[in-house]
Parts: sequence; C-alpha cells; structure tokens
Amino acid sequence: MNRPVMVPGEPALGAGLDFLFRPSGVAIVGASNDPNRIGGRPIAFMRRGGYAGRVFPVNPGHAEVQGLPAYASILDVRDNIDLAVIALPAALVSEAVDQCIARGIKALTIFTSGFAEIDAEGAAAQDRIRNQCRSAGVRLLGPNCLGLMNVRTGMFLTFSTVLDAVTLIPGSVSMASQSGAFGAYFCGLAAQRGIGFSQYVATGNESDVDTADCIAWLAGDPQTRVIAAYIEGCRSGDRLREALRLAKDAGKPVVIYKAGSSAIGAAAVNSHTGSLAGSDAIWDAILEAGGVHRVRSIQALQDTVYALSLGVRPKGRSVGIISGSGGVGISLADAVSDAGLDLRPMPPEAQADIKAMNPFASAMNPIDTTAQVLNDLTLFGRMLKIMLRDGGYDSVIVFLMQYAYDEKFFASWKKALLEVKQEFPDRLFVLCMAAPEKVARELEAEGFILFDDPGRAASAIAALAKGHPPVVACQPAGAAASPAAAHANAKDGAVTALDEIESRRLLEAAGVPFAPQVVASDMVGAVNGAETLGYPVVLKILSPDIAHKSDVGGVKINLGNAAEVRAAWTAIMAAAASAAPHAVIQGAVVAKMISGGVETIIGVHRDPTFGPMVMFGIGGVAVELYGDVAFRPAPLTPADAEKMIRSIKGFALLSGFRGKPAVNLAQLVDVVVSVGRLAAADDRIASAEINPFIALPDGGVAVDALVLKQRTAQGPTQ
Amino acid sequence: MNRPVMVPGEPALGAGLDFLFRPSGVAIVGASNDPNRIGGRPIAFMRRGGYAGRVFPVNPGHAEVQGLPAYASILDVRDNIDLAVIALPAALVSEAVDQCIARGIKALTIFTSGFAEIDAEGAAAQDRIRNQCRSAGVRLLGPNCLGLMNVRTGMFLTFSTVLDAVTLIPGSVSMASQSGAFGAYFCGLAAQRGIGFSQYVATGNESDVDTADCIAWLAGDPQTRVIAAYIEGCRSGDRLREALRLAKDAGKPVVIYKAGSSAIGAAAVNSHTGSLAGSDAIWDAILEAGGVHRVRSIQALQDTVYALSLGVRPKGRSVGIISGSGGVGISLADAVSDAGLDLRPMPPEAQADIKAMNPFASAMNPIDTTAQVLNDLTLFGRMLKIMLRDGGYDSVIVFLMQYAYDEKFFASWKKALLEVKQEFPDRLFVLCMAAPEKVARELEAEGFILFDDPGRAASAIAALAKGHPPVVACQPAGAAASPAAAHANAKDGAVTALDEIESRRLLEAAGVPFAPQVVASDMVGAVNGAETLGYPVVLKILSPDIAHKSDVGGVKINLGNAAEVRAAWTAIMAAAASAAPHAVIQGAVVAKMISGGVETIIGVHRDPTFGPMVMFGIGGVAVELYGDVAFRPAPLTPADAEKMIRSIKGFALLSGFRGKPAVNLAQLVDVVVSVGRLAAADDRIASAEINPFIALPDGGVAVDALVLKQRTAQGPTQ
Repeated sequence: MNRPVMVPGEPALGAGLDFLFRPSGVAIVGASNDPNRIGGRPIAFMRRGGYAGRVFPVNPGHAEVQGLPAYASILDVRDNIDLAVIALPAALVSEAVDQCIARGIKALTIFTSGFAEIDAEGAAAQDRIRNQCRSAGVRLLGPNCLGLMNVRTGMFLTFSTVLDAVTLIPGSVSMASQSGAFGAYFCGLAAQRGIGFSQYVATGNESDVDTADCIAWLAGDPQTRVIAAYIEGCRSGDRLREALRLAKDAGKPVVIYKAGSSAIGAAAVNSHTGSLAGSDAIWDAILEAGGVHRVRSIQALQDTVYALSLGVRPKGRSVGIISGSGGVGISLADAVSDAGLDLRPMPPEAQADIKAMNPFASAMNPIDTTAQVLNDLTLFGRMLKIMLRDGGYDSVIVFLMQYAYDEKFFASWKKALLEVKQEFPDRLFVLCMAAPEKVARELEAEGFILFDDPGRAASAIAALAKGHPPVVACQPAGAAASPAAAHANAKDGAVTALDEIESRRLLEAAGVPFAPQVVASDMVGAVNGAETLGYPVVLKILSPDIAHKSDVGGVKINLGNAAEVRAAWTAIMAAAASAAPHAVIQGAVVAKMISGGVETIIGVHRDPTFGPMVMFGIGGVAVELYGDVAFRPAPLTPADAEKMIRSIKGFALLSGFRGKPAVNLAQLVDVVVSVGRLAAADDRIASAEINPFIALPDGGVAVDALVLKQRTAQGPTQ
Repeated sequence: MNRPVMVPGEPALGAGLDFLFRPSGVAIVGASNDPNRIGGRPIAFMRRGGYAGRVFPVNPGHAEVQGLPAYASILDVRDNIDLAVIALPAALVSEAVDQCIARGIKALTIFTSGFAEIDAEGAAAQDRIRNQCRSAGVRLLGPNCLGLMNVRTGMFLTFSTVLDAVTLIPGSVSMASQSGAFGAYFCGLAAQRGIGFSQYVATGNESDVDTADCIAWLAGDPQTRVIAAYIEGCRSGDRLREALRLAKDAGKPVVIYKAGSSAIGAAAVNSHTGSLAGSDAIWDAILEAGGVHRVRSIQALQDTVYALSLGVRPKGRSVGIISGSGGVGISLADAVSDAGLDLRPMPPEAQADIKAMNPFASAMNPIDTTAQVLNDLTLFGRMLKIMLRDGGYDSVIVFLMQYAYDEKFFASWKKALLEVKQEFPDRLFVLCMAAPEKVARELEAEGFILFDDPGRAASAIAALAKGHPPVVACQPAGAAASPAAAHANAKDGAVTALDEIESRRLLEAAGVPFAPQVVASDMVGAVNGAETLGYPVVLKILSPDIAHKSDVGGVKINLGNAAEVRAAWTAIMAAAASAAPHAVIQGAVVAKMISGGVETIIGVHRDPTFGPMVMFGIGGVAVELYGDVAFRPAPLTPADAEKMIRSIKGFALLSGFRGKPAVNLAQLVDVVVSVGRLAAADDRIASAEINPFIALPDGGVAVDALVLKQRTAQGPTQ
C-alpha cells in the first residue's frame, strides 16, 4: 500500500505544481483588452485584486492590454515566466504550447475547450498536447478548465464570473474541483459566510494534473489548513489514495463532495466528463479508509469546511447543551443524538449546583437555564462553567437566540463566553444563534463556531469528532413501540396477559385465521390430537403464567410421529417445572406445523396519546435489527392497510421474492384491518400481537398470539 | 373517526379563539412604563409596529403608561375589551383573573410562570384558574407562555426579545408553538429570509387553549395559508387529529417540527413541560396519516414553509434540471434522486432539438447547456422552453450560479424566465442560485422558489409534491457491487468463472476453511462419500457450465441416508440434463450439511478504479433487502477487518443474538483478511465470493464459493 505511485510517463504526485500555484511570472496567451472576455478576465481580476506578481499579456494585435505592456509572442518576453495561461481557440492551442515550451515555461493552464470532452478527435488532440508537455517536463492544468486562484496573493488565473459577484476572503481553505463551476459556486457561497480561501483550482479534463496531484500539493502547502474537493471520478484510485495519505500525514483534513452518488447522477457524470463514477458504496469505503470527511451537499461542504477551518477539534464525542429555551434545548438534544454524539447526563452533584442557582432549571443535559438568565446576567456564565468543569464535556453547544442583535445586552454574555473559553481552552464551543455578521466574525475570531440551525451545529461537531469511536446506536424506533415490549409492563399491574387460548379466541372472533390446533391436558390427548391434525406438529406448554414459552423450553417443533410427541410432552413439562415451578400448567397445545411462507408480525398497541395503533412488519431480523415496521392509527380502511403493508422495505418478500409465489395480500390486508377494528372497538385491549402470522400464497395463518388487557379497578377484565 | 371531539368541560376545538387572535380591545394587566420589562414590552412593540387597535394598560400606580392613559383596575375600563393579557407575579394572578372575568372579557393570556411547570402546588393553582375561566366561558392561553402576535396588524402581545432583533414581515404563514422561544427563534430566522407571517401563538402550559385549538382556528383563518407548529406532545391525540383534519379540509398544509424524536430528546421533553413525548414511530404514523409535512430541523421547517407559502404546487413528481454547470447539474440530479423525485429523461426528439442548438450540450436530463449560454443569451430561454414543453416536467430546477449579481447580464435571463413561466403557469419553477436579496424577493413575488443549495431545493420540491405517489427506490447501493452481480459479466468474455472445485481449491489455499466434502463421479461414489462424511449431507451437481446450481434444481439438502442420496443423485442429474442439456457434467459434490450458525457473505471484487475491495455482510434478506454490507480496500489488517465486520447493523446476529452463543469473530476476521490478501496478491482475480460462509461459535466453514478470473488475450487464465 505504501509503494510509490508511478505510472510510466506520469509525473510523481504533486511534482512541479509549485510553478502552477506559486509562479514567479505569468503569461496570458490570448490576452484581451475586454475585461469580460475569457482572455481579459484574469487580467481584470488580478488588477482589481491587487496581484503584485508579474503578468505578461501576449497578443500580437496590441501593444498594451488593460494598461499592461503586451507581447506579440511569448518568445518576446525577456523576464522570468514559470506559468503560461492559454486562452485561445482550440485550433491555435497546439502551436501556442510549442512556443511556451520553447520559451522554457514550467507549467501550463489551458482554458480552451473542444478536446476530450467533445469527441475522439478532441481526445487525440488533447493527448498530443499532454505528450508535448510530458516530454518537456511541463505540468499541464486542463484543457477545458476554469483555471486557478491564489486568493491570498490575488492571483486570479480564472475566467469565472463568480469574482464579479463576490469578493473572496483570504484564509486557510483550499478547493480542488473537477467541476470549475461547482468549485466557483461553492467558493462564492462560502465567502458570503466568511470562510477564507487560500487556493482554488479547477482541473477540467485532467489530461495531466489531476485532483490527486492537487490534494498532494495542498497537503504540503503551509497556507492550506483544510482541503475541500469536488470529485466525479478518478483515473487512478492508487494516486487518490496516496494523495489522501499525504494529507492525513500532514494533519490536514480533506472534505470531499463525491458527485454521482445516485444512479442517475452517475449517469450524468458519464455524459459530463466521461469519468468513471463507480459504485457509491465503494467510494464510501475508500473515502472512509482515507479518513476523508465525505459530505453529501454543498451546504454540508460549507459547514464542514467552516468548522474545520477554525482549527479547534474536540477530544471526544461528549456534548453538553445549555439553552435558555427548553424547546430549542430539546431540538439540540435530538440533533446531537441523531449525529451519534454522546449526550451523557451531568454528574448528580453538578446538577444539584445548577438547581441551587435556579430551582426551576433542568440540570441533566440539556441544561435549561430558563429565562431567569435574562434577569440575573451572571447566571449564564456560572452555569456554563459548571457544565464544562463538572460535566467534563468535550464540546458544548450554547443557544443564544437573537440576543446578539442587542449589543448592550449581549456584552455581558460575550464576556462570560470569553472568560469560560479561556478557562477551558481544550473544549469546543459551538454557538447556536442568529447574529449580525460583525458579531459572528468577532466570535469566530475567538475560536467559536456559529450555526443558526441546531441540526447543522450537531453535524459539524460530529465531523470535527471524526475518528473518535461513535456512540452505540439506540434500539430502532419501531421496536420500542412493539406490543411485545408492552408485555414487560404487564407486571406493573396496569395490564394483564391473556393466555394463549383466550388470546386466540378473541382474535379468531375478530376474524384472524389460526393454524389448526388441539388443547391436550395429558400426553395421551396430545398424541390423539397430533394424529387428528396430521404430522408434523408443534407442542407448546399451556399456562397463564408463562407468556414466553420458548424462553423456558416450553416449545418443541417439527414432531413427526407419536413417539416424538410423547418425548416432547415429557421434555416441556420438565422444562416448565424447572423454569417456572409455581406456574399453573393447564396442559399443552398441539398445533399443525406450518412450513414455508413468510413470517410477519401483525399487532396493535394502545398509545396513551393516540389510542390504538396498528403495526405491521416482517418477522425476525427485519423487525429486530432493521426496525422495518409500519404503524397506522386504528381503525383503518383496507386501502390504508394495503398502503401500510406495501410501505415496508421487506414487502419484496411478500410479493414474489426470488421466484417464490406471492403471498395472499388481500387476506393479509383483512387480518390487519381486523386487528385494528378489534382494538378500536374495545378500549380494554391494551395490545394484541400475532407473532408470527405466516403469510402464504393460499392464505396464511396465525401461529402464536398474545393479547394484553387493561386491568380495571375490579381486577382483570376479560 | 369523525365523531366530534368533546371532552366534558373542554370547549370545542378552536371555539372562542377569535377573541384571542382578533380582539376588538386589549387590556394589559400589569402594564409597565419600562419597555424592557415583561409588562412593558407588548406596549412598546405595538407602538413601534403601528397597532391600530385599542390598548388599555392596567396599573394602579400610574396615570399613564408609555404615553397611553392607564387604569387602576380593569374594572375601570369603560370601552369594549375582548382580551386581557396578564403580566403579574404568580401570587396576584388568580385575583386578576377574577376581575377580568367580572369585567366580561372573552379571552385571557397569562405570561406569568410558576404554575404546572414547577410543582404540584403550581399545577393546582393552574387548575383553579382554568376552572374559573371554563365556568365563565373564557378561553385561556397559558400560563407560562410567550403570548401571541398578529403580524399583519402589529398586535404584538408578547415579551419575546426577537422583536428587538428582527422586523417580522406580514404574510401568510402562521406558527403555533408549544415552546415560545423555539417559535420566536424560528420566526426571526424565517423573517431574515423573507418569509411573511400572519399569526404567531405560543401555548405555554396549555391549561386550556392547546396546539390543536390553534391549528383548528388557523384552518379557518382567511389570512393563513400555511400552518407551522412546534409540538412536544399533546393531551389528546383525538383533538390533534381532528385539528389536522380541519386543516386538510381547508386545503392548508401543516408543517410540524415534533421535538423529542430521539430517546434523549424525549427525556428532555419530560423534564421541560411534562408533555408525553410518545414513541417517535407512532408520531410519524399519526402525522403521516394527517397529511402533515413532518420536518426534522428548524432549517427544514423554514424551507418547507417557505416553499409552501408561495402557493405553487407541482402536479406530480417529475423534475427537469437545466444547468450551465455539468457539476452542479450532477449534484442536483443526486439530490433530486435522493429525494424520491422522478428524473425521467427527455424524449429523444427533444434531446435532438437541444443538440441542434448546441452540439456540446448534454440533453438527457439534466440538460447541461454548457457555458455556451453565456455567449448566446437567447439559448437559455429556448432550451428551458423545450425542457418544459417537450419534457413535460411538473417541476424544473434552473441553476443560475451567482449570475444575478450582474444586474445587466441577468436582465435577459430574467426576462426569459418570466416569459417561459407565463407560458407554463401550471409548472413549479425552482431556481438554484445565490442572489442579492432584492432580486430574490422580486423573483419570489413572481412565484419562483429560490434555494442556493441543491439538496434543499430538491427536498422542498419533494415536500410540495407530497401526496403524489413516490418513485420506486433503486436497488440498495451495496447490491450493485456484489461479486454475484459481477458474474453476470462472465458471459461478456472479460472474465471466466472457475468451477466449484477450482474455486474452493484457490480459497482453501488462501486459508479459508470449507465444510468437509467429497467429489463423486457416480452414484456409488456419492453414497460412499456420504457414509464417510456422516449424515446428513448435501448433494450438488458439479459442472463448469452451471454456476447457479440451485436455479437448475442441481442441489438437494438434508439427505439423511443412502436411499435419499441415491434418489437425490437421480433427481439432480435429470434436472441438469433438462435445464442445461449441453453442460458438461463432471459428477456431484457430497458435502457435510452444516446446521445452525449465521450465514454470512464474504467476498472481494476488483473495482476498476480502486482495485480489490473486500465485502462483508449477513446473508439473505439482510444483504438483499437492507443492503447491510460493508466494503474495505484490500489488503486489509485484522483490525480493519474487525472494524468492518462490526460496522454492519446485523453484527448483533454474530455477537450473541437473543441468547445464542457468539460466533468465532477472530476466525471471521482471518477469513476476511485472507480473501482480501488473495485478491491483492493476484490481480487476475476479478472477484471471489463465499456465499454462504456459515459463522459458528467454534469456527465456521465456507459452504459455497465462486471465483471469477480475468480472461487474458491468451484465453482463460487459471
């Protein structure tokens, strides 16, 4: 993996790019007097930007271009020139390249389009120029590129119109973009929120210099702290990985927007530049392995680059939230939690300290200071300090509303923020607020990170904390509302579980079909039952005191003959006696064993706010690990039920997966509607769950079910 | 479901709220001369906002408050008063309420805190006040609330500091918020991007008037077009559902931010107001059933409300994209695709028309106009027209960079936009651009929707298209890169499949353990093999021409004795002869049947850009439907391999799921590393896939494997 990346004839990564990014003299071949033409724009931009370097316009028809002395040919320039920019029609480019090489320039940038992006002929012409350059040891940026800018020096070697709209600010972010316009648009947006740039480079057709080259060079550029890139694809995965390694070794974060993440986007990439977009999952893995911050929107590119450019990194994933608004505090908690950050509670003593300052405050985390902080202006600083000192959070998010618009009022808060920040220099301070631009820039200069949106604030912290082990995700949302979970509450006395027979009776009456079964009170009855039903059968212990039969060894499946039924009877009775010695055992249920089909879960659960909610999901792993369930309020129409069934990802399993026959959807709809109707009609039903309902092509059957009823003051109702 | 929602003593939904939102006279009880105090702020705000209604300050200590004649008691006011705002210490509230009722007011707003949000005593006091009001038929907003505002009339009955920072704009959005500060913060942010408001109401402790009341009233308010709400929980699910139904019937979209979506956020809700946050999945289902636009950030709340407030709705989910930047076009395509919108291609004839205008343009969708539109200013309008007329898209996104900053240049584009929009009045026009505020407001006034971020533009269209059937999602990203998929390419001649024995030999040599097996060339050999291995066994056809054995009936499992093996032999030979009559049959493989364990997939696939990429996943549904797989570049270290295995959601199945023993993770790591090493060391290997590798507690085994090799010019290499 650490072998040097050297394709024959291919220059070493980043080699010679000093002449591109820091040339000591620049010729503009095809310079124009018109500041709106491609050959005129760079000169106009550099004059406006105060570029102090030497610029040599080349144009045989003029003695002077935009006030600068012009040259008929680049060969006439006597001074040192490292870099030539070619802004000529395609037909004239090859000859101009020859002259530039003859003149001894070290790097070339070709704006001109009409090469590999057009057709095979263009590609051949591009290859010829690339070979001219390679033979001469000249690095070539483009053709068909928007050029480059050194924002710190004002060297704007580009014709991008973005410079007419926005003034770029010098800073420490550099951008390498395979799409010139994307890069320029991004720089413009970023500048409007105060992000400063060092270098911008658009690589165009990448006939020689590619994104990997640029990232590698920027890794060594002392004026670049954060590297942003827009990538559609790359010629050599090895070169890109090596460039990312160089940036990592230099301690410079790389933020990449990879275009073509969707199938259609990828198709558009192909029609755009012919880059190979590749599988998005592969890109994900490669960028992750390279330590890259992968972002999925221009806004996230801005946010991440912004947060990284301030140079503060948290030491871990713990986050404290302090807010004078309970509501925004909760929104921040949701966002922090969703971002996989660690919202651990404050230590109990610290909570007591907060409560001592304001008995109405919430002190756990988020801290809700309440509006009391607006009355006692010292309170905010004292609470913030306790949060950092005793909570020990790596990062803190402070919600500051629109307070900064009242300069006088905000002065004391700002003082408190600065004091606490100075006391805890190793913590990350994120301010969630709307602020006038001036105040925002002042706070950023002190190392604070500002976002008005809680979600964006949380995502930025997660980006900065990249590399620290993530917090283990919570249980999928669906699982928490499962009727099975509700059973755990049966013990608290609010609800009571019906036994298997009662549960079945209730659901059968409501219209749910069950697998044929017989209740046996002794071993002989069980064998008789099995003979009647036909083998194979399942034997399940029957007891009002044992809800989870499998857990106590109370279920035996796939019994093929009388001897197996007898052995199973003995086994489940012994298991039950051992696991639940005080349980009343009523016998066992013998049921026809159902093979094949798809195990589904159909349930209803009475929500305290919304009443009965029907649930549907595919059984097993689908619901347990992937939370692939859907809910609807009961009662529901058949159309609602069908929409609900179709809404889960696992629906494919029901509709003829891998050549299997589709299950009877109409019957499934019926069962879901019936279960909902049952709970809607009888508000004593706390929950009902059929698990599994085995869906089959000719109509499925319920195999097991559990109904919980509300316990009334008079005792259990049935 | 349509039964009227009437809790005993509870007023009908929205009843009497006219007196709150459109009172004909307002008393401020506890009015202050100090414009910064709670009792002074509403008066100051209303004076500044030019409120034309009658305001009666009540304060026994002053003859005049902020220039208005003041009253010692509300009983002294002779004019008509509908609404009284109480801004008094908690101890004085009850008496003030009595006086207000005695005076005959119709609605009350209580700013004062110190009630149910504090303790049981506060809750009791709150209940007493609520009962006073209910008995008198007076509606009560609060206590502990930030009040309300009618932005159109300047009736600012609130003490929110946001009005010091931002000037709210009159418009058609109304906001009901259980958190006053969240609502005010949102209004402030929204105002800064030009969103206009009608009503704002903070419901505080909701002792009487709740969010459902407000939504119901706003549904009937002619000045409200879009209803936004912040909800932490609700007292009565039925009331909320009924309110949503009223809004739906009135054709008014409701956008809800539901706080407490995460477990920790929900815990914070409980400490905040004692609302029951409920399961997030249940809320999702209820809001979905109510036709609500549920949003998950303040920014999304703004974006959705903004898009809805312009009043244009697309007729379907199809979107056309037109961009002068290929790169931004691709970003828009990714975003539109991710948002579940329909990015159908342009009809062939329309593509030809575009190409005729500019042979270098991409014409499919996105249309990449290329920078040519900057030279020929008529081109843009003509292409846009073709896209709408012949493409028939419901919505169009136009990327306009920072062009609007050059007013002169943008004039002709703006003209083209307006002309085309007029020609297609039923289409939604979204402009992705950065623009000066003035231009943005002008374009919005013409019905254009503006976003600078492609992702936010796409999400907004998806929100507006809610209700139209979504586009079927694509195959999960992981599946596309599966080595199995690569097998489909074997026929194209680039790669060749090794047979089962060769595949196994190669992987065994690399260190992958396989289930014991024997190759049999005839039926007797198969039975002998089975006797040696021990029953049960699996019998699989062996042929270099049959890669997917199961598909042709070439596999029989769970064979328990010699007779079954003989029958299986006959069956698979017959099946193969029928399904693949020209296949060379070398015999069959007899393998030990492996029971239990967890089926995993371990593979490696040579990516054209990045070389060998190792894949790991749980077999079956997990990989097929949920795309739960991970990739890493090969070779990889054991630490990388373990991280990769742990990164999938299904890892729980390997680490002791539901009491089952954990599988041997170290061995799994070994196998993953070995597979990666194999491909990294031999670049003729196009892909290798072990499916399944059955992971077991004592070390698992590969059961089936397939290796594809690159075909060289000399023919297949092995």
